[in-house]
Amino acid sequence: MKKIINDPTTVVDEALAGMASAHADLLRVSLDPMYITRADAPIAGKVALVSGGGSGHEPLHGGFVGAGMLDAACPGAVFTSPTPDQVLAAAQEVDGGAGVLLIVKNYTGDVLNFETAVELADGIEMATVVVDDDVAVKDSTWTAGRRGVGGTVPLEKIAGAAAARGDDLASVLSIAQRVVANVRSMGMALTPCTVPHSGEPSFTLADDEMEMGVGIHGEPGRERMKLAPADDIVATLLDSVVGDLPFSSGDKTLLFVNGMGGTPLIELYLAYNSARKYLADKGIEVTRSLVGNYITSLEMQGCSITLLKLDDELTELWDAPVHTAALRWGV
Amino acid sequence: MKKIINDPTTVVDEALAGMASAHADLLRVSLDPMYITRADAPIAGKVALVSGGGSGHEPLHGGFVGAGMLDAACPGAVFTSPTPDQVLAAAQEVDGGAGVLLIVKNYTGDVLNFETAVELADGIEMATVVVDDDVAVKDSTWTAGRRGVGGTVPLEKIAGAAAARGDDLASVLSIAQRVVANVRSMGMALTPCTVPHSGEPSFTLADDEMEMGVGIHGEPGRERMKLAPADDIVATLLDSVVGDLPFSSGDKTLLFVNGMGGTPLIELYLAYNSARKYLADKGIEVTRSLVGNYITSLEMQGCSITLLKLDDELTELWDAPVHTAALRWGV
Repeated sequence: MKKIINDPTTVVDEALAGMASAHADLLRVSLDPMYITRADAPIAGKVALVSGGGSGHEPLHGGFVGAGMLDAACPGAVFTSPTPDQVLAAAQEVDGGAGVLLIVKNYTGDVLNFETAVELADGIEMATVVVDDDVAVKDSTWTAGRRGVGGTVPLEKIAGAAAARGDDLASVLSIAQRVVANVRSMGMALTPCTVPHSGEPSFTLADDEMEMGVGIHGEPGRERMKLAPADDIVATLLDSVVGDLPFSSGDKTLLFVNGMGGTPLIELYLAYNSARKYLADKGIEVTRSLVGNYITSLEMQGCSITLLKLDDELTELWDAPVHTAALRWGV
Repeated sequence: MKKIINDPTTVVDEALAGMASAHADLLRVSLDPMYITRADAPIAGKVALVSGGGSGHEPLHGGFVGAGMLDAACPGAVFTSPTPDQVLAAAQEVDGGAGVLLIVKNYTGDVLNFETAVELADGIEMATVVVDDDVAVKDSTWTAGRRGVGGTVPLEKIAGAAAARGDDLASVLSIAQRVVANVRSMGMALTPCTVPHSGEPSFTLADDEMEMGVGIHGEPGRERMKLAPADDIVATLLDSVVGDLPFSSGDKTLLFVNGMGGTPLIELYLAYNSARKYLADKGIEVTRSLVGNYITSLEMQGCSITLLKLDDELTELWDAPVHTAALRWGV
């Protein structure tokens, strides 16, 4: 296992300490229980957004804490759900009196632990939105139903903007649900990744193989295929994504090409170019774009493609100012 | 070779086409000769900044084109210098009448081809700054003198801010030279990378080996060592970086922990944390930070550490608004 770490048992703590000192103006980090909050939390009268999940997907979620996006993120151990007490402590820390929206990726452990936090919460109004945008498989290793993957990023951005403009909890929830209803993703891997604790790759792929529909923890996808050109990879992903909602000619969309952590930006822009050609052929308009490593699987090589159908309000919320470690504009 | 590409000979063209469509509001791309310019270039009366170099280091340099940073970038083939005609065409395109500063990383081919562009330029006032911040080796595969590496990023940011505030060519050059005089870097690799054209890794490393002082094209460094903990890796890099300028107790610095392309953010933040502890022990103050993949070597795993000694003016220029694909704040 080749990693820049000191000890497999302290990777998350040390990385969080690094985040805290690199972004001291923006973030505060609690190590026990483990959560990251906006430095200026709580914001009185604003709905607070709390997300979280296993570590190893950086910058998700801690890199999205800040003005216009999340109020708090709860990182679990690598690829392990955060505990209810983390979620509860974070929610208590950031609650500004207008309630808390929990944003949960659809994995069995995450859903259970966030729900338990809601049950334990006393005197805080809470709502939950579960994102399950991965069209690859119906059920998976750690999931009943579809997995939550790339769609989480625009969900957190857009719901965060709704909260920032002063929407109440029911309205922020409604916007979040509209994103979930209109976002679809699928990913693929060229290589596996290695959880520091285990020291072994999560799966193996031959030199000429790739995993189509892979999960963000290396869960099996739809099919192990022979390595193919980028245009074919993108077409396979987008056939499934576009066909699922479905997205139709004339739709305005956000196109998000995400790297799995080990794939360089030059390949992501190349895949983005393939996706633009594919969508142009279908008459699907790309009005907003995001290209880069935003929801990763440690050092896995591969990419995912997320499409979000945009209306004027979702576009405006996407464009609204955001100031986080990983996404920043307008401020 | 596992990559998300269509054809090794069209990787750069396709990735640039992707950048052009992903950032159509920000960038214009010319494919023959190949260069990227600000969409709003030329800016009348502003000194224009032009950089470039081999592709494969994304987001450098194209990701740094935009308000407050570069006016143009000239990408060569992967790990291959851009040609003089590219540089000249880009300079002519972005010259706003106040002259052009060429920012050149110190590689023999780059220096020669940028110099030839200066000789060919007729009627455009030009100046050149060469960055050679890599303390690892004196001469290298493609270099006489030190290599230009991570220091290029703060150089382009700070010189770009000086140009944006209205400094004349001599003043922007002077600021750029001050950055070069005060910035030092060193990098390391856990794995090699594969140039698409060649299809073979640029070098090989055993499962328990790393290359200390590696170049951004996989050039040999100082020493091939046994894999070590992050704290030791960072100490080895910083011993050389700090000792070189030297940086001293009480100095205010920008600490830039850069990923080589295949190393995930969780490891970069962990390395950043190690670096903060090391510098705190030396009494060197970190007043600005940058953590992420900004000057990469395709899918190479590894990191580099750059330290820039800051004064009030350099800090102010670092903080000034920037709007590019890869660095954005204040706007």
